Amino acid sequence: MENWMEELHEECGVFGVYHAAKAAALTHLGLHALQHRGQEGAGIAACENGQLLCRKGRGLLSDALSREDIALLTGESAIGHVRYSTQGGDEPENLQPLTARLGTGMIAAAHNGQIVNAWELRQKLEEQGSILYGTSDSEILLHLIQREKGHLTQKILAACRHLEGAFAFVILSENSLFAVRDKNGLRPLVVGKLGDGWCVASESCALEAVGADFLRDVQPGELLKFSSEGLTSFHYTEDTACRLCAMEYIYFARPDSTLDGKNVHQVRRITGRILAEKDQGKLEADLVIGVPDSSLSAALGYSDASGLPYDVGLVKNRYVGRTFIQPTQEQRDLGVQLKLSANRQVVEGKRVVLVDDSIVRGTTSQRIVRLLRQSGAKEVHLRIASPPIQYPCFYGVDTSTREELISARMDCQELCQYIGADSLRFLSVEEMERAYSGTGYCFACFNGKYATPLFHHKRALELA
Amino acid sequence: MENWMEELHEECGVFGVYHAAKAAALTHLGLHALQHRGQEGAGIAACENGQLLCRKGRGLLSDALSREDIALLTGESAIGHVRYSTQGGDEPENLQPLTARLGTGMIAAAHNGQIVNAWELRQKLEEQGSILYGTSDSEILLHLIQREKGHLTQKILAACRHLEGAFAFVILSENSLFAVRDKNGLRPLVVGKLGDGWCVASESCALEAVGADFLRDVQPGELLKFSSEGLTSFHYTEDTACRLCAMEYIYFARPDSTLDGKNVHQVRRITGRILAEKDQGKLEADLVIGVPDSSLSAALGYSDASGLPYDVGLVKNRYVGRTFIQPTQEQRDLGVQLKLSANRQVVEGKRVVLVDDSIVRGTTSQRIVRLLRQSGAKEVHLRIASPPIQYPCFYGVDTSTREELISARMDCQELCQYIGADSLRFLSVEEMERAYSGTGYCFACFNGKYATPLFHHKRALELA
Amino acid sequence: MENWMEELHEECGVFGVYHAAKAAALTHLGLHALQHRGQEGAGIAACENGQLLCRKGRGLLSDALSREDIALLTGESAIGHVRYSTQGGDEPENLQPLTARLGTGMIAAAHNGQIVNAWELRQKLEEQGSILYGTSDSEILLHLIQREKGHLTQKILAACRHLEGAFAFVILSENSLFAVRDKNGLRPLVVGKLGDGWCVASESCALEAVGADFLRDVQPGELLKFSSEGLTSFHYTEDTACRLCAMEYIYFARPDSTLDGKNVHQVRRITGRILAEKDQGKLEADLVIGVPDSSLSAALGYSDASGLPYDVGLVKNRYVGRTFIQPTQEQRDLGVQLKLSANRQVVEGKRVVLVDDSIVRGTTSQRIVRLLRQSGAKEVHLRIASPPIQYPCFYGVDTSTREELISARMDCQELCQYIGADSLRFLSVEEMERAYSGTGYCFACFNGKYATPLFHHKRALELA
Amino acid sequence: MENWMEELHEECGVFGVYHAAKAAALTHLGLHALQHRGQEGAGIAACENGQLLCRKGRGLLSDALSREDIALLTGESAIGHVRYSTQGGDEPENLQPLTARLGTGMIAAAHNGQIVNAWELRQKLEEQGSILYGTSDSEILLHLIQREKGHLTQKILAACRHLEGAFAFVILSENSLFAVRDKNGLRPLVVGKLGDGWCVASESCALEAVGADFLRDVQPGELLKFSSEGLTSFHYTEDTACRLCAMEYIYFARPDSTLDGKNVHQVRRITGRILAEKDQGKLEADLVIGVPDSSLSAALGYSDASGLPYDVGLVKNRYVGRTFIQPTQEQRDLGVQLKLSANRQVVEGKRVVLVDDSIVRGTTSQRIVRLLRQSGAKEVHLRIASPPIQYPCFYGVDTSTREELISARMDCQELCQYIGADSLRFLSVEEMERAYSGTGYCFACFNGKYATPLFHHKRALELA
Repeated sequence: MENWMEELHEECGVFGVYHAAKAAALTHLGLHALQHRGQEGAGIAACENGQLLCRKGRGLLSDALSREDIALLTGESAIGHVRYSTQGGDEPENLQPLTARLGTGMIAAAHNGQIVNAWELRQKLEEQGSILYGTSDSEILLHLIQREKGHLTQKILAACRHLEGAFAFVILSENSLFAVRDKNGLRPLVVGKLGDGWCVASESCALEAVGADFLRDVQPGELLKFSSEGLTSFHYTEDTACRLCAMEYIYFARPDSTLDGKNVHQVRRITGRILAEKDQGKLEADLVIGVPDSSLSAALGYSDASGLPYDVGLVKNRYVGRTFIQPTQEQRDLGVQLKLSANRQVVEGKRVVLVDDSIVRGTTSQRIVRLLRQSGAKEVHLRIASPPIQYPCFYGVDTSTREELISARMDCQELCQYIGADSLRFLSVEEMERAYSGTGYCFACFNGKYATPLFHHKRALELA
Repeated sequence: MENWMEELHEECGVFGVYHAAKAAALTHLGLHALQHRGQEGAGIAACENGQLLCRKGRGLLSDALSREDIALLTGESAIGHVRYSTQGGDEPENLQPLTARLGTGMIAAAHNGQIVNAWELRQKLEEQGSILYGTSDSEILLHLIQREKGHLTQKILAACRHLEGAFAFVILSENSLFAVRDKNGLRPLVVGKLGDGWCVASESCALEAVGADFLRDVQPGELLKFSSEGLTSFHYTEDTACRLCAMEYIYFARPDSTLDGKNVHQVRRITGRILAEKDQGKLEADLVIGVPDSSLSAALGYSDASGLPYDVGLVKNRYVGRTFIQPTQEQRDLGVQLKLSANRQVVEGKRVVLVDDSIVRGTTSQRIVRLLRQSGAKEVHLRIASPPIQYPCFYGVDTSTREELISARMDCQELCQYIGADSLRFLSVEEMERAYSGTGYCFACFNGKYATPLFHHKRALELA
Repeated sequence: MENWMEELHEECGVFGVYHAAKAAALTHLGLHALQHRGQEGAGIAACENGQLLCRKGRGLLSDALSREDIALLTGESAIGHVRYSTQGGDEPENLQPLTARLGTGMIAAAHNGQIVNAWELRQKLEEQGSILYGTSDSEILLHLIQREKGHLTQKILAACRHLEGAFAFVILSENSLFAVRDKNGLRPLVVGKLGDGWCVASESCALEAVGADFLRDVQPGELLKFSSEGLTSFHYTEDTACRLCAMEYIYFARPDSTLDGKNVHQVRRITGRILAEKDQGKLEADLVIGVPDSSLSAALGYSDASGLPYDVGLVKNRYVGRTFIQPTQEQRDLGVQLKLSANRQVVEGKRVVLVDDSIVRGTTSQRIVRLLRQSGAKEVHLRIASPPIQYPCFYGVDTSTREELISARMDCQELCQYIGADSLRFLSVEEMERAYSGTGYCFACFNGKYATPLFHHKRALELA
Repeated sequence: MENWMEELHEECGVFGVYHAAKAAALTHLGLHALQHRGQEGAGIAACENGQLLCRKGRGLLSDALSREDIALLTGESAIGHVRYSTQGGDEPENLQPLTARLGTGMIAAAHNGQIVNAWELRQKLEEQGSILYGTSDSEILLHLIQREKGHLTQKILAACRHLEGAFAFVILSENSLFAVRDKNGLRPLVVGKLGDGWCVASESCALEAVGADFLRDVQPGELLKFSSEGLTSFHYTEDTACRLCAMEYIYFARPDSTLDGKNVHQVRRITGRILAEKDQGKLEADLVIGVPDSSLSAALGYSDASGLPYDVGLVKNRYVGRTFIQPTQEQRDLGVQLKLSANRQVVEGKRVVLVDDSIVRGTTSQRIVRLLRQSGAKEVHLRIASPPIQYPCFYGVDTSTREELISARMDCQELCQYIGADSLRFLSVEEMERAYSGTGYCFACFNGKYATPLFHHKRALELA
């Protein structure tokens, strides 16, 4: 597979508004609440009187779009996107929303997730005479739509049937807004009511941010159409399942979001409690601390169930600029030093239970344990609020297909030694299911049970 | 007082390194840990072989200084500054460090604090034929030094004797580094050991960030000189007192900093405990939450002493860009909406104890209470981990000399109603002293007992 | 015709290098010599080991491409483009070269000219399922190539047969360089020898700039292919003619360029002589001046033939920044004031023959005449070194299709009065042909005899 | 002399407006006409109701000041500056106008020229307790004014008496405008009438640009004051002379400017005629060409007197961006290649007389001769419209104090060989005086007769 073909693994955020004044400004607010899902780029497309206009740029929302941009984007419907990418792909042509003129008029699309048969679809489109400029999945969707027959809704439904993988698309046409979620519901997508209008978002926290009322999650395989006739629901397939990505709860989503009926903070707190129950009577310690920010909920849960006091032993520097975060390993190492510091007065001479959300490469954990010891911690017991990650993700979470997943190479004891902790314990997949009270989730990165065929990605699996 | 004369109230951060390789890069790291003290501008001056070079810019450290800047700043000694300013004063000539050529050679200076007799000193210097370009206190110090007699140390000591107010200066000459703290110790300044060299910083967290060992706080009225002969201590006056600004503990400093012997996080946790003891047997509630980030320690303390569970009811958006923060009241209001959101699943139907660090204008508290109610909180009991702020600060903390301090106009009951809480309670000054176990602090903003004469600022007091 | 469909009239410059070290740096130099052909944007694509890389940006070459960009563009073949556009179209997707991945590998294309059936081709491509993002003619060519059969040379030849209008394309593939000129030769394109390699350019002055030896003009309808087998010539059609745009000589090209065998400066000088011969014995004057820069050659020719002294009565400000040049009429007016000033010492009290290259709207001439009178000129006799422009151009020269061509509305006498000159005389088309010693030119803007069918553009003609 | 002390040699342009609507916009226009005098930086200070505001920036006028800047600068009086500097000194503190608050109120100053006793004055001011931040002569003037007694006019007159060297200052106070020219009139300064108000400028072309009527040159040693009482003239000394810099006519000023009664273009044309007379009967040639732009007038003069046809053999690229002009010798060499090209059709097979204005280092001439030969010129006879430059300038023209003046090392014959011309001839100083019909000029760079004492600069002279 040539270099230019490297699919981008993108965990992103999408947002859409239909029939509300200042739709672009609302979308800006909504994206702001989704900024944690992507800081590499942002864009908004808005529609007024059948005229679509799009503005996008690199970096954080505040860098990517100016006040003037927002002011230009007039109209009562809009979609937006914040983008995270693990690879070079910061070419402007990969920024979203992507706009194009189809036979049916102007259209804009933005997506979150990863199409696993993107390479195969792209090949086929090119053989048929099309030229694709970028490498984004949205461009593939636009070409598929262009080549289908019928009115726009029919074309979108037909186009979706070609797609395998994880996706949540928002699509803006000259007079409608569409939102579609893949048939396994791998990526989250929620819909809310906003006055007479509607909005859709990757997470419920973005609905709150614009003052919308949460209506429901978009269902797996469902296409919602918002138009002058109101909200209509379609399904592009009957063959659906509930397989929301567990990493959304573990690491990715904001604690105040509620996805497929479960509040992220509360799920995390329960995982902390289960970790504490496993340690019951087996571990003596003085206090519990969490790695900010995503592990604080689990640390509180551990404190609840263990009775050990919760304290703030690690402080995160809120001002780590983007210039500091760089993809090389060396720079990642530096990143940890800059981002976290220990409060010596809290941990000195103490036996510390350290709760973290997950371990990918192990280097971050290693550094945090070292940091705590340098600040005088007597013992550091690391507890991970998820199972060992042993399989790569092809659905949009950047869990390291290329670099090694350390849990694929080391068992718990070896890993504990590598990290330098006094003890290490993970959640098991069964405990995870218990915490989530159900099996309707994708645990592929823990157990290798993928929700879809993997196409050419299979090779990556074999290598792992 | 004409407009151009408006002194800038600046709570800033300073850092200095003497005799360590890559002094400018270390200063950059140190300033990074002090970034919370100022995000309006940053600068570093470094010295190699008697050659002083300075680079500075607006905005966050990562915007103000490039990698190239740091690479240019060679040598084993350096000073740096991060700047916060409440007024227009973002002219480049107010960025620090400030450099000048004195009779004794090149010199650079940066400071934190506020000189209360700046206007009087400036007038006198101009009458003597000097021209001052900017409005920073550092410029005044440089002119005073230029006009004194003797070698550089003598000139600095003599110059300090003219200054009244709060200050912590770091001064870099062609072969030495100086650090001086005002005679009341109003602003913090600590010194650490770094290999064969030294570093000084506004807060101890910056020493940790560069891997230095905390040595001690600089004493009130003390001038430290770092030179090829090592560290020498001078006192510019015998008439000293310990009056460290209480707001450093309450709001400004980082929780992992230890100032004048007390850890910020732990002092805050104690204030939370005292608040809980006051409520003992008088208040029924379901949970305690804190306003992130500065009030979380006090909220944990309240939970400790009350037995009420601590939870994460408010989530802070970490990506609020600088474009959103603007000094107008209207924009401040908008700021709260963007910065904080409530976790409905946590607070819905609950009686919430909400802990905050302080109340200045009251509008922020009002909005947070409203936010919690909109998210379903049944009751909101606001507890403030400091006394009512009734007096303006002239020592560098921007506690609103111009706009009204709401506690100067309303008593606790009126304020509770204004804010819309079910109950409101402050810490008393006596409880504050108990929490701090001592009286060696400046509580002027609570009790009007100022540590120094106020000169022409008195008028501001009369108006308040 | 909807707004998004507005074809861009672009008189641009193209350059290409094959088999020469530092091909991108040479292309940069070559484009620099063509900068007068377009200042709105620039780009270069280079190829090394089958890897195509492209960099482009807005504005002058020095703004659009950095030293780093040039350094990145390694390899021995490259193409480049400087762009002029009359309409809004400064979207990044219209910058050239345009790159795409075709079935046959990566390709980059840049062009000068205007395809008159672009709208029709675009419609057809979309009906066949393609999506076109920009509005450039290069994108149409790429899509046509993608849809043709055979190897790349065959595909390009077949694609060209669909195109009607004026064009000079340079195309870079993974192992070859192509250059093609439309079958009427409406736009210039020359080829030179550079060591073991070759280069192609819109004007011969760019060959000189890189030290290449002029070889010959590309022939109408000819496709040149540069590859490891050397230079091969193809013709996409036998139905060719010589119709090089007369405006290239009159106004557009650089005086030191030689196009289709004629030196621009010398052709201009001859037109000046013919103007003088017409005035022989009929006009008394003191001196001849030209409007800098394009009319100086004709003014010298007038001086030659008339015996009147040539002087520098108008001075051009070389530093008119791009911020001053704006497309509104009001700003165009301001532009003249800023760009030109009269030398009072030269023109005061004098009867001046003022030579200009052409009149489009008449406002510029009006202002220059007024300027000379204000500076004391006693009489101003305007002589135009080309015939009246009465028809719009559809071949890439922005001669005002929308705004009125003043010579289409006024005869010479009316126009003289409008401009405020003491007398006004144009060249006739016959004299023009005499000056050019031949009829192998496009004089459509003077006589309405267009070289190609005009498709939907016909309507513009009717309106005019 | 330490590095930081390196005085900046600055040939700049100044402009001022008093009592005219939109004074800053007029100043912008005026500076635009003076842009050839400096492209490194620009600034404007304007005054409304006693409030002075200043905006400045680096680069060309269009880069340095935005439309918003100009709109902000309200009021009926303004001064402006365009800056050229030969050394590093592009620090923002060296941009002009410089503003300061003196005892008498706010003041702004800008200057053209060079104070030769700047170092001595600076030393003395520092000994008296002042701090000077930048290295510009304007800052010295402001400090001198601040230290003098009396009202502002008295202070300025007294301050000027301390200054030795070449200067033309414009000074804006809260209610007046001042313009002063050094007692030898080394730098030009003219005054014009603009409606009810006035303007001053370095060259008369800037008066034309704003529509002002030329009034007269400011006299050597004269201080003009524009105030509500009209225009008043003072002289800071009686000891005056007329010694306007000859390089202004030769190279620096615009051809349409008239300085101290002589039109620049016409003086240049006369020098060309004298060169031709010297060749009379001694040189056979086919045509005359000039090096654009500054030598075209002299080339025309040569053609007048010799009867040889004038032609355009060299074409200047108008788009040489600032990124190409760099101070290193290597880059200077590259600069010539990019800036000039020969028109082969004009010079091929011809005996060319090439007229240039002056020779400093000789490398430019060398390259132009080589360029002409490469383009087929049979013979190249170089004629220089000024005498050999053998002495450095300390009055603001950057004629190479450091790098060698080639005419100080080689006689005419050696130089001819070095340059590669077939013959070379200069103007003699006597012919120069004849062309200028007088001796009231500074010819120091030709004959070493300096108009003022040189202070520490003498050393530079000895070295040369």
